[in-house]
Amino acid sequence: MQVNRRAFLAGGAAAAAGLTMLPQSRAVDIPLPAQEAVLKLSSQLGVIPGGSLEEKLDKMQGWGFDGVEVGGDVIGNEQKYLDAIANTDMQYNAICWGSCNGDLVSDDAERRKRGVDKLKQALESAGKIKSTGVIYVPAFIPETNRTNQEIRQLLVETFPAIGEFAVSVGSRVLFEPLNRNEAFFLRQLADAASICRDINSPGVQMMGDFYHMYIEETSDLGAFLSAGSYLHHVHLASRIRVLPGQDERSFVDGFRGLKLIGYQDYCSFECGCKEGTDRHEEIPKSLEFLREQWAQA
Amino acid sequence: MQVNRRAFLAGGAAAAAGLTMLPQSRAVDIPLPAQEAVLKLSSQLGVIPGGSLEEKLDKMQGWGFDGVEVGGDVIGNEQKYLDAIANTDMQYNAICWGSCNGDLVSDDAERRKRGVDKLKQALESAGKIKSTGVIYVPAFIPETNRTNQEIRQLLVETFPAIGEFAVSVGSRVLFEPLNRNEAFFLRQLADAASICRDINSPGVQMMGDFYHMYIEETSDLGAFLSAGSYLHHVHLASRIRVLPGQDERSFVDGFRGLKLIGYQDYCSFECGCKEGTDRHEEIPKSLEFLREQWAQA
Repeated sequence: MQVNRRAFLAGGAAAAAGLTMLPQSRAVDIPLPAQEAVLKLSSQLGVIPGGSLEEKLDKMQGWGFDGVEVGGDVIGNEQKYLDAIANTDMQYNAICWGSCNGDLVSDDAERRKRGVDKLKQALESAGKIKSTGVIYVPAFIPETNRTNQEIRQLLVETFPAIGEFAVSVGSRVLFEPLNRNEAFFLRQLADAASICRDINSPGVQMMGDFYHMYIEETSDLGAFLSAGSYLHHVHLASRIRVLPGQDERSFVDGFRGLKLIGYQDYCSFECGCKEGTDRHEEIPKSLEFLREQWAQA
Repeated sequence: MQVNRRAFLAGGAAAAAGLTMLPQSRAVDIPLPAQEAVLKLSSQLGVIPGGSLEEKLDKMQGWGFDGVEVGGDVIGNEQKYLDAIANTDMQYNAICWGSCNGDLVSDDAERRKRGVDKLKQALESAGKIKSTGVIYVPAFIPETNRTNQEIRQLLVETFPAIGEFAVSVGSRVLFEPLNRNEAFFLRQLADAASICRDINSPGVQMMGDFYHMYIEETSDLGAFLSAGSYLHHVHLASRIRVLPGQDERSFVDGFRGLKLIGYQDYCSFECGCKEGTDRHEEIPKSLEFLREQWAQA
């Protein structure tokens, strides 16, 4: 059906080009994004074999990664991380930070203040290493008794100031929607995007994770289109949360969405490696698989 | 930018056709829907001027409507409605039913049973008039103290049986997402679609309303793609909830979504008419405006 699929989308241009593949009514003109999307591949360091940061970065460079996602341990160790990556062609992207025990949405004002201070530390660190942002989860299931309504209202009230701080240190918050087994609040990209719109700060944006999306989204394409310009990071994992290509999970429909929104940031491994397989063989195969999926999108 | 926009989408076909409008990388191949989408225009009877059902249907037929959306008063009066539409080319679509005071998600088992019985009556009536379904809102804001988590769980537990009944009488339930000023539970199409997927019954489907979507969705296109095959009704209204075309609200991006999912059901007016304007002039103008927006999509 390749030809038909293309013809369907080409209807408008086909008519313009004097071809008659399908009636004009079959054409759908979706606006061209400001910039052509790019596939920049990255990984969390934990996915990469190696005993030291230098060894991991060396392997990643050799395998052709474009970027590196770091954990909270970068905070206070920025120079060490900057020195280690200086001799590679790679850049750091997101800091995978988390929920801070749900402190920022706690009923306890003291805990909320503590949480905000810690997030600000992470944002400063993110600015120093030129990260795309700090991945933030409002609350995992056991961390809150608040309703979605209460949490959403609290975020919309408190995050404009945090966003302003994020911009002042050259970074941003990245809300991460999770699946129902990890969080009930914030499970879909469209919801995260509407919260970002309400907060209305360039310092408060969002991400998507193919593993959670498989559980919560009915359309990867629809989800990324709803995320639109708020999307600044993507996590890559298969259906069973191993390396892309190690099970049947397709990335093509999601990659169509990234192409249609002109996505400019990183797609980063947050996953395991299928039992009994060797990361040294499987990681390069997964990168190749993803480039093929991007070409198909 | 027309040419660029088309070229963007045409990249794949352009390459296939031996043209070189843009590099292959700019092409996005979105699968062809099983059937080509159709724009079938409808209205709630309350929007149409006229003293009697017959007079309203006569005007709608003259203005070129394809379908008619009815209210709860059809229940028990099916034959009267069937007789009235028999001499027109139009069909009935959704019954706009509502929340039944939130009875179906009440804490009170008796109220829940009463609500289910009433919804079943509406579904039987919908089957008799060959309606596309019964529009159902789980709860308006003042009607529930339950959390989103509780309401979602209750729907997923109780609606498979209701869906089975709906199919047995030749109809379906249509969940309607509303905006935050009317309901906090169920505000986005992607959320409704994921609930439909969990309930997993052909008798429990969903709708979208352009008025609510303007407030809650960041992308009409993304929202309708997420709704996908679960979408069986659409409400039409402008940003300020008057006739489409009476303010700046665009329907093009949403209509792109309907085309991409191969939408086969009705788009129906649920709106007022701008103060100081005459429905007899404005309704035909609005129909023409919508057909132009569809052609642009």
